[in-house]
Amino acid sequence: MDPFAARPDDAVGGLGEERLITAIRRWLGTASPRAPFGIGDDCAVLPAVAGRQLITVDPVIYGRHFDATIAPRSVGAKLLKRNLSDLAAMGGRPTAAVLALTLDAKVSVWWLEGFYRGLAACARRYRVPVVGGDVAQANGVLAASLTLLGTAAAGRTARVISRRGAAIGDWIYVTGTIGGSVASGHHWRFTPRLEEGAWLARRADVRAMMDVSDGLAKDLHALTPRGAEPALQAAALPRRAGASVAAALSEGEDYELALAVARTADRAGLEKAWRRQFRTRLTCIGRFVTVGQRPADAVDLAAFRGYEHLAGGV
Amino acid sequence: MDPFAARPDDAVGGLGEERLITAIRRWLGTASPRAPFGIGDDCAVLPAVAGRQLITVDPVIYGRHFDATIAPRSVGAKLLKRNLSDLAAMGGRPTAAVLALTLDAKVSVWWLEGFYRGLAACARRYRVPVVGGDVAQANGVLAASLTLLGTAAAGRTARVISRRGAAIGDWIYVTGTIGGSVASGHHWRFTPRLEEGAWLARRADVRAMMDVSDGLAKDLHALTPRGAEPALQAAALPRRAGASVAAALSEGEDYELALAVARTADRAGLEKAWRRQFRTRLTCIGRFVTVGQRPADAVDLAAFRGYEHLAGGV
Repeated sequence: MDPFAARPDDAVGGLGEERLITAIRRWLGTASPRAPFGIGDDCAVLPAVAGRQLITVDPVIYGRHFDATIAPRSVGAKLLKRNLSDLAAMGGRPTAAVLALTLDAKVSVWWLEGFYRGLAACARRYRVPVVGGDVAQANGVLAASLTLLGTAAAGRTARVISRRGAAIGDWIYVTGTIGGSVASGHHWRFTPRLEEGAWLARRADVRAMMDVSDGLAKDLHALTPRGAEPALQAAALPRRAGASVAAALSEGEDYELALAVARTADRAGLEKAWRRQFRTRLTCIGRFVTVGQRPADAVDLAAFRGYEHLAGGV
Repeated sequence: MDPFAARPDDAVGGLGEERLITAIRRWLGTASPRAPFGIGDDCAVLPAVAGRQLITVDPVIYGRHFDATIAPRSVGAKLLKRNLSDLAAMGGRPTAAVLALTLDAKVSVWWLEGFYRGLAACARRYRVPVVGGDVAQANGVLAASLTLLGTAAAGRTARVISRRGAAIGDWIYVTGTIGGSVASGHHWRFTPRLEEGAWLARRADVRAMMDVSDGLAKDLHALTPRGAEPALQAAALPRRAGASVAAALSEGEDYELALAVARTADRAGLEKAWRRQFRTRLTCIGRFVTVGQRPADAVDLAAFRGYEHLAGGV
């Protein structure tokens, strides 16, 4: 749907601020609590939580992350899911979201309604209250940035898991399938790996974890311990149907988890326990080896690039 | 300073993502903790806090909130201070901030450095760690949105104060001076009323509070109890030098606090205690009266408008 209104009567600019905010509250419905726990005061009040919290922020921008061919509901849902995927990568569960919207006065009310309804449906599904936000006007812009708060997933052995902690010899795993996410439309439909991430974070043998969004070839750098390099088996990569090895390594938008499993782990036990719990695949794709000791049959990741967030000159 | 680079070599697009993020970390310096408590993982980890939290989000947008005449340091500082003012209005103190930046690849590295250094200096001054963020590219855009987390200010009698709670007969107060904030440049230099807000939130006689940013005539609606209207004395308005009554009521960008003090309060005692604590002014400007019972000498607020965030049609 074209985000820009063809007729002045359909544009948010004609609505004015007060009516727009009333409409946004209606579109969010039960996904947004009442003030002071939701929209309508200087800040939103969040209930007390025990333990450490997690926070992340990611945007969707017209012309960058979506265009006029995409349903606004999908855009709203993806905005939340991108952030949920970051939370999943640290073993967290969501507690609250706030949304900063920047839009041209010519944006269509219908587009915006779809966007908020898609966000709200997704927020209800994952039980994330949308507690606050801001709407600002800017010519030629349609962008939304969502900040997501969470906590370490519940449970006696809950822990927050970071990208650091892998060691040389550790095994590299990835959830689900990778590659071809954009071509197949998967990047609109994906399910953030919240349950999987929380389960993995409770296993002491899982040493480090991250989400794969810019392509494994690029993202794996952050998981790689000092003095090591990843040695991946191309044949082991769990590729989406039709995706080449290059696509699996460099396209990105996978929203899967990559993790390091301790060299000493009972891998068969881990994989068996996983299969009892999830239908999602969990695949060992290689391991971290000392720099320069990559076997000849392992993939040379330097030949692949991931998604570059800031590309191009003047 | 013009945010857009005159020469390709000075543009962030030439820097690339990795070097840009390294530069941002350097510019933020001690204002940003190390991962996982700062930038560099899927989420940032926040230390545990006791009690209820507060969250708010506000942007600065090129062409809307600033232009090429403004020093980038001022833009970075104001982005944080706008949010601190919202937190002050609920009696909160800040705990962490995350920043979502959307920028054209042609934005100048020098501008961006100034922006981050201004933000960092302000973050250190108010002891707000900048724990995370995101940088996304979009043509023709330069916008930053900051999400601020806080808690109720410390102390045995700490409470979160909302916009609701005023009653008919309550007195209306405002901190500092209002009007002429844009013309005088005060809106770049203002000090968010964090200490004042926390102090006021501890007084049971202060029933409701908010920050004045869109102009008192507009903002006071949110503080006004059902069935009431504000009866303000024009002569009582603490106007900035050179500001008219109209300017004080409708220009906005004041970043002062407006509050309701209980009808039964010991106002002399409150004002005396305030003066012992603060050099900032605290002025009684009127009270809430039953709708239709506004005295003839009180200001008719319907004659004034505040800042409209979403104005203009197609």
